Amino acid sequence: MRMYDIIAKKRDGKELDDNEIKFFINEYVAGTIPDYQMSALMMAIYFNGMSGKETASMTQYMAMSGDQVDLTYFGALSADKHSTGGVGDKTTLIVAPIAAACGLKVAKMSGRGLGHTGGTADKLEGIPGYKTDLSADEFFNIVNTVGVAVVTQSGNLTPADKKLYALRDVTATVENIPLITSSVMSKKLASGAKNIVLDVKYGSGAFMKTKEEAETLAQNMVSIGKLCSRNTAALITDMNTPLGKNIGNILEVKEAVDVLKGKVCGDLREISIALAGAMVSLVFGISEQEGKIKATSALDSGKAYIKMRDWIAAQGGDISYIDDTDKFAESDYCMQINAFAGGYITEMNCEKIGTAACVLGAGRATKDDKIDMTAGIILHAKTGDYVSFGEPLCTLYSNNKDSLKSAADMFKSAITIGAAPVKQPLIYKTVR
Amino acid sequence: MRMYDIIAKKRDGKELDDNEIKFFINEYVAGTIPDYQMSALMMAIYFNGMSGKETASMTQYMAMSGDQVDLTYFGALSADKHSTGGVGDKTTLIVAPIAAACGLKVAKMSGRGLGHTGGTADKLEGIPGYKTDLSADEFFNIVNTVGVAVVTQSGNLTPADKKLYALRDVTATVENIPLITSSVMSKKLASGAKNIVLDVKYGSGAFMKTKEEAETLAQNMVSIGKLCSRNTAALITDMNTPLGKNIGNILEVKEAVDVLKGKVCGDLREISIALAGAMVSLVFGISEQEGKIKATSALDSGKAYIKMRDWIAAQGGDISYIDDTDKFAESDYCMQINAFAGGYITEMNCEKIGTAACVLGAGRATKDDKIDMTAGIILHAKTGDYVSFGEPLCTLYSNNKDSLKSAADMFKSAITIGAAPVKQPLIYKTVR
Repeated sequence: MRMYDIIAKKRDGKELDDNEIKFFINEYVAGTIPDYQMSALMMAIYFNGMSGKETASMTQYMAMSGDQVDLTYFGALSADKHSTGGVGDKTTLIVAPIAAACGLKVAKMSGRGLGHTGGTADKLEGIPGYKTDLSADEFFNIVNTVGVAVVTQSGNLTPADKKLYALRDVTATVENIPLITSSVMSKKLASGAKNIVLDVKYGSGAFMKTKEEAETLAQNMVSIGKLCSRNTAALITDMNTPLGKNIGNILEVKEAVDVLKGKVCGDLREISIALAGAMVSLVFGISEQEGKIKATSALDSGKAYIKMRDWIAAQGGDISYIDDTDKFAESDYCMQINAFAGGYITEMNCEKIGTAACVLGAGRATKDDKIDMTAGIILHAKTGDYVSFGEPLCTLYSNNKDSLKSAADMFKSAITIGAAPVKQPLIYKTVR
Repeated sequence: MRMYDIIAKKRDGKELDDNEIKFFINEYVAGTIPDYQMSALMMAIYFNGMSGKETASMTQYMAMSGDQVDLTYFGALSADKHSTGGVGDKTTLIVAPIAAACGLKVAKMSGRGLGHTGGTADKLEGIPGYKTDLSADEFFNIVNTVGVAVVTQSGNLTPADKKLYALRDVTATVENIPLITSSVMSKKLASGAKNIVLDVKYGSGAFMKTKEEAETLAQNMVSIGKLCSRNTAALITDMNTPLGKNIGNILEVKEAVDVLKGKVCGDLREISIALAGAMVSLVFGISEQEGKIKATSALDSGKAYIKMRDWIAAQGGDISYIDDTDKFAESDYCMQINAFAGGYITEMNCEKIGTAACVLGAGRATKDDKIDMTAGIILHAKTGDYVSFGEPLCTLYSNNKDSLKSAADMFKSAITIGAAPVKQPLIYKTVR
């Protein structure tokens, strides 16, 4: 079998068979297929797509390319959640303890932030003492006793995806539904959970700019999950406005804790209940509505908050910070940005807002950048809200005074104020 | 400027500007753009094409990427000829001396054969003593005094094309009209001739399988040539049957000499006169018909044959072999293949026949293979001819007895014998 023939076949719009896909994934990981052939294949796939069968094959060989986590001990109770990435998305911090409070086993590996979206592992490291790098045994034991543990990806999980993603990232072949599907789902398969809930976002802050694209991606991912014997559901949710009000690592932890304490309503609470409810519904085979009732009850009863304390403590975090979030350090500098006009906020460009948070120090432009844990943005108004001229839109936080000015300009350029209110549903639909 | 953005722009179907094309050609040759980004761009070009403007820019920056031959000394008399490659194509050996006999200056750099088509340089090395690697001064002097010299590509001519072609060859991005155009025309521009005649072949033995594709390619190449101030014309010619009767290095030299001696009629003579006539027509600004009359006269008067002797002698070749081609060595083994049915030859798959010649030893499968100069095939019948059952179709020649059997099978599988005669025009049209 020759890589040349595989490239030419895909270039000519033909379907690759299982053996061909196995060959190019395995040989690429082994280093016998050079990057320049793989990038040509990725571009051919960008143009000609992949069938469901091809995508399923590719996903499975990618999942099998390295270590695979074995969660069979937890039977049907293991559940995972994945978001395609958004600005202000701290739902894992809320959803995981709710799910655990409902009896689920959440063994979650989380990524670090890059670009305009933050990573859950980074946020958790804002809690003094919290260890994101547990041994496999520690990880397993905490999931077993507490019901939830969140660590950074360890070991040699999906090396095919790591290598392919790095290549796609520099060859303009990221934005392709079969390739995104295989990248996300291979990691989920290798992570071992029997039940998978996906949060597929659309809008200015997401990879998918429209509902329709997000729905196609969601359908692709759900069907691959099912083909691989995982119960899978996807919520298609709005990312035309940041999720919640806080953006930035410690700021997001504080907001998540406030939701679990019952202090905060709104979109963040709503989407967290929906995601946790979907997980509960998959695990227990009940309706989504029943799942949401269980999730709401776990949240409102305070059980989820207790789970969060147990979980953070088990991973070495100082829970006095959870109990009293005022203990968290704050940035040295802040700047309030006021409405430059009166009217309804009709648009918040999430990518720009995420980038403004990065500029303040909350994120990484390159893999080796260091994060300023306290930096970020607190929104005082969001898309659809009415603001009067001069009313505060947000407060910027940073330890680098010089960054405030350029972040402020970027933030302002992200906001559109108009005459008519806009209303977007937060959750467009569920695919399952 | 970032290569990523150039890939994404072409991927999205937009036109690249002159600066972007300059950037990716120059930086690729300099080694600062990696192969994996270039192959992604090549695949994006494969799908989205290039405008005439883009192709012209790319061709010129490729031509300027290395040394450029200066033929201004010869004024409007310098002329070059290029064939897109075919089986049995020894026209350069005939056309160059005809053109020189008409007063043209033919300073020709020729490639080596790879795959199923042969290279002119390899064929000439079949003549004892002939030197294909002259110094620039020797080359220039022979062109000046004799009117024709043929050498292998020397110096650092179009390094951009060398590097790009090697990459396209292994990433399934060769068969694309703008990319073929820029590859061929950059070499022609760098070779310095003021007048360029292209032989664009279509059919089973050519890159372009149909007349229409060949015509599109021809139009592209001619318009790029004109944009770059070269008089350019292209003949679109049939490669559904090998050209002439002999295939293989020394066998082809013998046939070319026989044409110049006036011993052979048929397609090879016809196409050689047409190509030489087109060169003469471009150089002297006369009609194609007038050009052909001059070329025919140079051939029939024996002047072209004398030019060939002078040229071969000037490059160190032993002309006693030209005067008496029976002096050439012959292969140790031969095998006659007879018609397996009676009827008209309706198809000869040139690619298969070229590959059969390779198997016999006449060509290279990889760059480092050694050629058997005497090996090859002499056809006794061609497409359109009537053969009776058992009548000879061809004779195979090789010094490797074992190769005869598999070459014979391959040859037979290339031949279709049917009830009705077929007639294809040899020269479909001229584009100028």
